[in-house]
Amino acid sequence: MSSLTRFGVSIDSQLIKKFDSLIGRKGYSTRSEAIRDMIRDTLVEEEWESGKHETVGTITIVYNHHTRELDHALNDMQHQSFHQIVSALHVHLDAHNCLEVLVVKGKSQDIKKIADRLIGTRGVKHGKLTMTTTGRELA
Amino acid sequence: MSSLTRFGVSIDSQLIKKFDSLIGRKGYSTRSEAIRDMIRDTLVEEEWESGKHETVGTITIVYNHHTRELDHALNDMQHQSFHQIVSALHVHLDAHNCLEVLVVKGKSQDIKKIADRLIGTRGVKHGKLTMTTTGRELA
Amino acid sequence: MSSLTRFGVSIDSQLIKKFDSLIGRKGYSTRSEAIRDMIRDTLVEEEWESGKHETVGTITIVYNHHTRELDHALNDMQHQSFHQIVSALHVHLDAHNCLEVLVVKGKSQDIKKIADRLIGTRGVKHGKLTMTTTGRELA
Amino acid sequence: MSSLTRFGVSIDSQLIKKFDSLIGRKGYSTRSEAIRDMIRDTLVEEEWESGKHETVGTITIVYNHHTRELDHALNDMQHQSFHQIVSALHVHLDAHNCLEVLVVKGKSQDIKKIADRLIGTRGVKHGKLTMTTTGRELA
Repeated sequence: MSSLTRFGVSIDSQLIKKFDSLIGRKGYSTRSEAIRDMIRDTLVEEEWESGKHETVGTITIVYNHHTRELDHALNDMQHQSFHQIVSALHVHLDAHNCLEVLVVKGKSQDIKKIADRLIGTRGVKHGKLTMTTTGRELA
Repeated sequence: MSSLTRFGVSIDSQLIKKFDSLIGRKGYSTRSEAIRDMIRDTLVEEEWESGKHETVGTITIVYNHHTRELDHALNDMQHQSFHQIVSALHVHLDAHNCLEVLVVKGKSQDIKKIADRLIGTRGVKHGKLTMTTTGRELA
Repeated sequence: MSSLTRFGVSIDSQLIKKFDSLIGRKGYSTRSEAIRDMIRDTLVEEEWESGKHETVGTITIVYNHHTRELDHALNDMQHQSFHQIVSALHVHLDAHNCLEVLVVKGKSQDIKKIADRLIGTRGVKHGKLTMTTTGRELA
Repeated sequence: MSSLTRFGVSIDSQLIKKFDSLIGRKGYSTRSEAIRDMIRDTLVEEEWESGKHETVGTITIVYNHHTRELDHALNDMQHQSFHQIVSALHVHLDAHNCLEVLVVKGKSQDIKKIADRLIGTRGVKHGKLTMTTTGRELA
């Protein structure tokens, strides 16, 4: 189990007042929690920049499932990358449009390549890669 | 069924050469497809800025499932927003860390509020909102 | 003169170790300073989202000064918005390419409109709006 | 002098209608111009990711000039990096707050380091690095 550290932050009174109001609106119950989130966010960004560590991302794509061959192509691509693609969720948005979210684990540069391929597939209307983390190194 | 339009783009030869090389690496088979993707991406951004239209987002959170009460709190929150939260995917990243992706449908300002709440929950290590689209208005 | 507040942050020891290493590389001398910067950054983002307050931005454009009429057009546009455009810096990057940075003051929605116009001007190769602050409300 | 290429884009009629309306609001006079801008923007992003090419950025900082030693520290830092820092513009925002924009030329990784140092300097309220281009490779 990991230990806790406590440190003090000195800050202008006006500045912390504005910050308190913002984090209240965002639903944080303590300043510590909001600051820990900002710190983790910065660390995740750096993890993705380095490209070397194992990390986790989600790839979100929206497409028309009537597009001939698209389901097939997406399926193929996912099987080729089965070592990285951990899981997938499929949502029927309406009679035509589907959303699929893939959870992908691997080096950031490999995850980016898989995302580029999927988002660039003919028939995919919109796609985005979200960079997150294995959580292992973020206590 | 919607109709197709064809238009011409004039561009410096060097610039299109660089672009061809980039979209080749990204796996696009035609320039049209790459340009349609850039156009859709710009339109989705604008849709989210306006805040008025119904749209779709995914919220990705990573958390330690040993955190007491967290599963419970996340569950509660999702049920309160059940009109907006369409579906969820849960992945066990390792013995401690879980990733959850929620697919959320509604006005962009409401989706942002749900994301803020979830990401700000004590015990959530990292969270991100991904802005995508219903696909309905993006042929 | 504004007063100082001091508050404590409790954080996992591993997490603060990683953060210390990151802010060391970025040149911060204390944690307080790094955390104040993250807080101000979040507040500036919110200021720009609201669109109501007076704020400050810089608009950077790169263009080829041989492009006929471009200098003239840019100049005209800047005079039309002279209430907002505070100052400008012009750099000769090489025999052909110029960079111009404008400092713009006004409501965020007005600054965005000026940036769109300038970046969309025929002959401008690249343009970006940078959102910053008057500094007045950020102690 | 560089030559022009012309190519056709086929696109759904509804999609191009929305795009026409968006670029109209942004002040573009032709689709070609808007598409060239999207292409250049994508290429600049890639240039910065690679880290190897010479490129150009602007660093915007807002600070209180009463902060003791800050002017001095910023000045020192800029002289240490004089090979990269091409030029600077200083704006007096009000009686207390100054904005400074620096134009920096060099490898993207070096520019990022200079930006980190400046933004991390005690007394700087807000800072941002804007990634642009030498323009040389963007016809």
